[in-house]
Amino acid sequence: MEVLVPFSAADPKSRLSEVLAPDERGSFARAMLVDVVDAVSACGATPHVLSTAPVEVSTPIDVPVTVDSRPLTTAINDAFEAGVPSSGVDPVDSSPTAVVMADLALATPDVLGRFFDATGDVVIAPGRGGGTNALVVRDPAFRVDYHGASYLDHLRIAADIDATVHAFDSHRLASDVDTPADLVEVLVHADGRAAEWLRTAGFGLDRSDGRVGIGR
Amino acid sequence: MEVLVPFSAADPKSRLSEVLAPDERGSFARAMLVDVVDAVSACGATPHVLSTAPVEVSTPIDVPVTVDSRPLTTAINDAFEAGVPSSGVDPVDSSPTAVVMADLALATPDVLGRFFDATGDVVIAPGRGGGTNALVVRDPAFRVDYHGASYLDHLRIAADIDATVHAFDSHRLASDVDTPADLVEVLVHADGRAAEWLRTAGFGLDRSDGRVGIGR
Repeated sequence: MEVLVPFSAADPKSRLSEVLAPDERGSFARAMLVDVVDAVSACGATPHVLSTAPVEVSTPIDVPVTVDSRPLTTAINDAFEAGVPSSGVDPVDSSPTAVVMADLALATPDVLGRFFDATGDVVIAPGRGGGTNALVVRDPAFRVDYHGASYLDHLRIAADIDATVHAFDSHRLASDVDTPADLVEVLVHADGRAAEWLRTAGFGLDRSDGRVGIGR
Repeated sequence: MEVLVPFSAADPKSRLSEVLAPDERGSFARAMLVDVVDAVSACGATPHVLSTAPVEVSTPIDVPVTVDSRPLTTAINDAFEAGVPSSGVDPVDSSPTAVVMADLALATPDVLGRFFDATGDVVIAPGRGGGTNALVVRDPAFRVDYHGASYLDHLRIAADIDATVHAFDSHRLASDVDTPADLVEVLVHADGRAAEWLRTAGFGLDRSDGRVGIGR
């Protein structure tokens, strides 16, 4: 299965500004990207990064990277229509195409494997806050719309084309990492490069006030 | 399966104070409790409410309610040791005991059924923020500790007694409803009494600033 991994390379993770400096946000975002790409590869699928700008990675990622600075919805829908070039050489590929966001630091090969195997013309893993964190699309008429409450929009778009939908219930896939509170999820549940990055940067769980937060 | 449903009846859902008046918080918390009790019953398990004070419900709940004002950890561990009295008449029950929090407004019979059927001496559904939202306990030596990052503590406690653990990955079970942001999850994913309560109280999704929030 071909898997698009959209990555926002310009001023990434701005909602982490209160706890991370700009260069740190970039470095942490790239650590999450590498975790996601590795997890996709480890479950036998083929990741293809779709980045808004060239990706600088100290740990190079050994997968195709397409730079497309257009809005996410346009870039993804055009990739669906054109087919995803596997390794840049294949012609249009008619296999199901998936989209997995680059900030799913809790994703594991196990959960992604179950997600890719789930039946349905459209399989959606909702993100916390009404978003869409991962998609499998097996109906060529389906188009994405990532603006606003995209989970509800994607349910409606699938219904409009009579596509069957499987809403995939996963805390790991629902947990995109945008805010300081999301870092708690990374430290509790993840053990990849992103979690290691946080620990090396001095972050740890703060249990001092009864509720679990992060400290540095 | 006997399922304890702990309910905090005194000043419930204080972190919703900025959007709900005290009597509204009580009413909304009881709507969630009824949703959870109904979902537990609908998947063939036997709910038993463990409340810190007598529960006032306009919609009566037709299940046993035990009032225990002690801290949650003490009350649950004592219930484990004593066995859960089914309908108040049975003697000690040796069937597996589960604990499902009363604020899991996104819980459905389907996900709870899969949760109760999951194998493992201890099955844990983590809550967002390091908590423990639901437990199945099949090892009589296991004891709970709900203080702080209870998910990590429960993993450690299980390891200490050589109990096998299944971490159950579910967004629905991870989403306990504590904060205004959590209300978005209820409006997007739930269709029970709690969601109806919010809609009747005038709440809806607010998509005006690109991110999804709640409005009233």
